[in-house]
Amino acid sequence: MTTVPDEERLPAQVGFVVEIDKLKRVLRRTTLMDGSRRENDAEHSWYLGMLAMVFAEYAPPGADLARVTAMLLVHDIVEIDAGDTFIYDTAAVEVQEKAERAAADRIFGLLPADQTTALRALWEEFEARATPEARFAKALDRLAPLMANHHCEGGAWVRHGITADQVMGNIEIIREGSPALADYATRIVEVSVARGHLARGHA
Amino acid sequence: MTTVPDEERLPAQVGFVVEIDKLKRVLRRTTLMDGSRRENDAEHSWYLGMLAMVFAEYAPPGADLARVTAMLLVHDIVEIDAGDTFIYDTAAVEVQEKAERAAADRIFGLLPADQTTALRALWEEFEARATPEARFAKALDRLAPLMANHHCEGGAWVRHGITADQVMGNIEIIREGSPALADYATRIVEVSVARGHLARGHA
Repeated sequence: MTTVPDEERLPAQVGFVVEIDKLKRVLRRTTLMDGSRRENDAEHSWYLGMLAMVFAEYAPPGADLARVTAMLLVHDIVEIDAGDTFIYDTAAVEVQEKAERAAADRIFGLLPADQTTALRALWEEFEARATPEARFAKALDRLAPLMANHHCEGGAWVRHGITADQVMGNIEIIREGSPALADYATRIVEVSVARGHLARGHA
Repeated sequence: MTTVPDEERLPAQVGFVVEIDKLKRVLRRTTLMDGSRRENDAEHSWYLGMLAMVFAEYAPPGADLARVTAMLLVHDIVEIDAGDTFIYDTAAVEVQEKAERAAADRIFGLLPADQTTALRALWEEFEARATPEARFAKALDRLAPLMANHHCEGGAWVRHGITADQVMGNIEIIREGSPALADYATRIVEVSVARGHLARGHA
């Protein structure tokens, strides 16, 4: 790794933090729990950091929760360039992967080299879901919109015609990171179906 | 501490995370860096978590950065009840303290008792600024709006008639947590005065 003189580190770091202010303008499909407006990626990332703290006891035993939090804060930054993809839009998800890789190159590349490596590694770890920390982080990322839709009488599920079968696919991903939270998510789906906020249907 | 049965923990935790979704609706005086709209407390808290990660090397030696991040994620939750106070509004800041204590009682009190204690302790530590972690966290909380105003041709400084003397008071708070970041903040103030985005003036 090349050594960057100290006086060049701070301007690079400032350039990066100025750039990521834009994450506050990337809108998701999910709304706030009161349904008043769409949620943005920055406030969503804060929310996941709080879920990691509050739901820590449901993480895999021995998981490094500081790394979970760091992953969650970083995980959506690539969407500044690549935009948000609705998780139920399977075709878009494939195109998205390429766009996100290019975004990671550009945005994390604004940092000094050691930090480019460290933040990109956090993002790659989250995406790969191969560690207990990444599986727990991903579980929270899937749980949060499920809770928000549940609190908005179906919210994005109703608007986009999502069925319980499709949501159950997500719950399998939650289960990989946290069986207890997957059980909770299953109860949400059951209640939402019973209330008519989620069609039973077929994917 | 009373032991709460496991089946009562999750509903209490869910009640808390549903409540704190409201932080996304608490608006600050500062805008996004592009000036397009006012920033909310939730996205601001995410941003501070990112600053802690990127600026970690300017923290006091030996500071526990995971605790800094946890403090930053939690620090504004009391504003769900108490609202945001402009740091230059000295009279309001005093009234605010009482309102924030009541808010902490109510909101952190939604959690199981062990977590009420833990999250409240993080908030109290941040407010007291008596540990290196709290001083660094507070430094970032003061640095962020300074950077945002600088990137908006003076932003809230211009709208509210703030002078360089007043901002320098903030820089002393930044210096307690990070001399390097205080030097950077001082350069921002100098440039902003030179560009006419901040009046030299008297507090």
